[in-house]
Amino acid sequence: MGTVISTCQTKLPPHLLDTAHAERMTPERLAARIAAGTVVVPQNILRRDTSHITPPAIGEGCRIKVNVNIGTSASRCDPDFEYQKACAALDNGADAIMDLSTAGDLKSIRASVRSLDTTLGTVPIYEAVRRAGNIADLDADLLFSVIREHCKEGVDFLTLHCGVNLEVLESLRSDPRTMGVVSRGGVFHTALMITTGLENPLWSEFDYLLEILAEYEVTLSLGDGMRPGCHDDATRHAKTVEYLNLGRLAGRSLEAGVQRMIEGPGHIPPDQVGYNVSMMKELSRNAPLYLLGPLVTDIGAGYDHVVGAIGAVMACAHGADFLCMVSPSEHLALPDITDIIEGTRVFALAAHIGDLYRNLPDAKEREMEMGLARSTLDWERQFSCALFPEIARSIHSRDDAEDTCSMCGDLCAIKMLQKVL
Amino acid sequence: MGTVISTCQTKLPPHLLDTAHAERMTPERLAARIAAGTVVVPQNILRRDTSHITPPAIGEGCRIKVNVNIGTSASRCDPDFEYQKACAALDNGADAIMDLSTAGDLKSIRASVRSLDTTLGTVPIYEAVRRAGNIADLDADLLFSVIREHCKEGVDFLTLHCGVNLEVLESLRSDPRTMGVVSRGGVFHTALMITTGLENPLWSEFDYLLEILAEYEVTLSLGDGMRPGCHDDATRHAKTVEYLNLGRLAGRSLEAGVQRMIEGPGHIPPDQVGYNVSMMKELSRNAPLYLLGPLVTDIGAGYDHVVGAIGAVMACAHGADFLCMVSPSEHLALPDITDIIEGTRVFALAAHIGDLYRNLPDAKEREMEMGLARSTLDWERQFSCALFPEIARSIHSRDDAEDTCSMCGDLCAIKMLQKVL
Repeated sequence: MGTVISTCQTKLPPHLLDTAHAERMTPERLAARIAAGTVVVPQNILRRDTSHITPPAIGEGCRIKVNVNIGTSASRCDPDFEYQKACAALDNGADAIMDLSTAGDLKSIRASVRSLDTTLGTVPIYEAVRRAGNIADLDADLLFSVIREHCKEGVDFLTLHCGVNLEVLESLRSDPRTMGVVSRGGVFHTALMITTGLENPLWSEFDYLLEILAEYEVTLSLGDGMRPGCHDDATRHAKTVEYLNLGRLAGRSLEAGVQRMIEGPGHIPPDQVGYNVSMMKELSRNAPLYLLGPLVTDIGAGYDHVVGAIGAVMACAHGADFLCMVSPSEHLALPDITDIIEGTRVFALAAHIGDLYRNLPDAKEREMEMGLARSTLDWERQFSCALFPEIARSIHSRDDAEDTCSMCGDLCAIKMLQKVL
Repeated sequence: MGTVISTCQTKLPPHLLDTAHAERMTPERLAARIAAGTVVVPQNILRRDTSHITPPAIGEGCRIKVNVNIGTSASRCDPDFEYQKACAALDNGADAIMDLSTAGDLKSIRASVRSLDTTLGTVPIYEAVRRAGNIADLDADLLFSVIREHCKEGVDFLTLHCGVNLEVLESLRSDPRTMGVVSRGGVFHTALMITTGLENPLWSEFDYLLEILAEYEVTLSLGDGMRPGCHDDATRHAKTVEYLNLGRLAGRSLEAGVQRMIEGPGHIPPDQVGYNVSMMKELSRNAPLYLLGPLVTDIGAGYDHVVGAIGAVMACAHGADFLCMVSPSEHLALPDITDIIEGTRVFALAAHIGDLYRNLPDAKEREMEMGLARSTLDWERQFSCALFPEIARSIHSRDDAEDTCSMCGDLCAIKMLQKVL
């Protein structure tokens, strides 16, 4: 059990050599960071020999990665459409896909996404609740059995809301929030605790959970069940207790040789992003941090991809490692293909800006290259180092402006300066 | 001369009472801040009795404002099109328009934008160079005469690159930059100094310039002629010398009773935004700060509006007051109407997030209101407090999901929690 972490304290397993290379990291350094729990490389052991991708490293010193959620809902259940969304995300810069489907043939939807040969995450409690039919009828056995099934299917990382315990529920009651609980996983566990009066089984039987995950080398994504739903709810007691819980569970996972990352909020006013992110990092001893947004304003509906990208860059400045894309239709509707494309692009942009904070050589060199390409008005070279070459080319070719662009035309500063000097 | 500043040290001129009200500031406080030079309210004295707008306050404790540039170029000269772009900008959240036209009947283009009854800015050196025909033939008299004409036409604020002096040129030579000079105004003045060997007349005859501006109560926007054109050029000597120069000129303007703000870069790596903005604020004794972007990556061509919005929010955290919109077509082509709409929206969003850093009551209350609207699944209330109500409504109405949205359908966390509690 836990072979990734336990065997690699001095030596990197051979299947991660490409990962180290992709991160411009020595195998020894990557091994040490995985062993210290500051980096994870999510890949289910069952996919090791069949997958053709280089599993992505997430965490300290790695390029910031982007996840895109897809998935059916009862209001819009079209598995083909979700498959196309996953393709669109991967084409536009996503490093991983989470399937959050709650309607249709869930197993077959996962198989279809898995066929894309990408890093795949799921949230097993969605399926467990659906099978139970009613939240009150969900028991620990069913939940653990669904978790095991997802592992057996080759899912690479699982979001599990292990930190939503009775203490969190008590904090929610003693320090109420405007929007209560807005994470679906968070609501399921809260409802279960309220209905049964019992502790969250993922908390009380955490060691058993770790055994299952270790068997398949599945990465645990410690879910953000108390994600604030609005600015007024940020940094309240319930979320802070959950930060503490997730920090404790992160330590136990590491001891058990199970790779894990921490999920974080959510809706946070801009001035609170820094200390929320820093707190998560400190409490978990620098576990990799997986953030949804954060959304630094609540009134940007329709442009929440931009709001999320702004928040994501702020979070990256303080240590976020893995960004969960927020689409333009967040809070309003299930995303369509265009939403996925636009959202993924702006998050790929945010991740690159995050990489600049880390002084990653590839990112810095690409910036330098663009400066040189612009200084010589070399348009092909500009397009080739742009994040979105075809979009840049298409806008530039809209007007005919010879060697400059139609913004300034013959009054191009670069051209004029060349003449003077 | 200088009546706005000199007469209002204790009492606010009556024409600015609505401005104080709009900013939820007492007239005394606004008067004190204008007198201290930490706030400007650009309005040409000739427009005071004819304009129907409340002139916008820019600076300490004010709502962050957005400017949108429009203007013809030799490659695309269509004044009607530029007029429509100005309308689109104002419809989507712009507080001011700068006309940067360099082709066509410049005076008539300005008149057409002025007819929109919005705060208007220009860059007189563009017209001066065009009239001179050749940069070497531009003399101080022509430049000052164009400046006076723009004042006489009722322009509210003028960008003038007064800080680009021989010392800046020397710094540019001793500490060269990859892209040299990318501000058109900066290039004109640099070229003029190189050609004539003489000092920039806007620097050497700054007192005369102040006399003209004071006569019309026109606000001076101290131009960013050494704006870095790529990340490698940020925070180099030439720009730092210009920061110092602008700080000195800001002090002289204030003494002369002329309202002024400082323009800032440009292309800056994310980790350098904070100290660049803080430096400008400190060196100018907290003059209002007007920023173009900054662009925190150079490789986002096609999405530079998002890059600029991300940089703008960072800059707001450190004191930026006035944001110059960057459009998706920046670096590639003259913006079209869609570019203006998209760019203005994301900058309006950035400005609102900036307002949250300032703890402005209107901005905070709107966030609170959205939380309440969401917690009760009150969709009409959500739309009405969204920044872009019609866009939010249109996305939400895409699918039928009854009282929730199609993202989660019947598994809406808010709805489920309401049931449990």
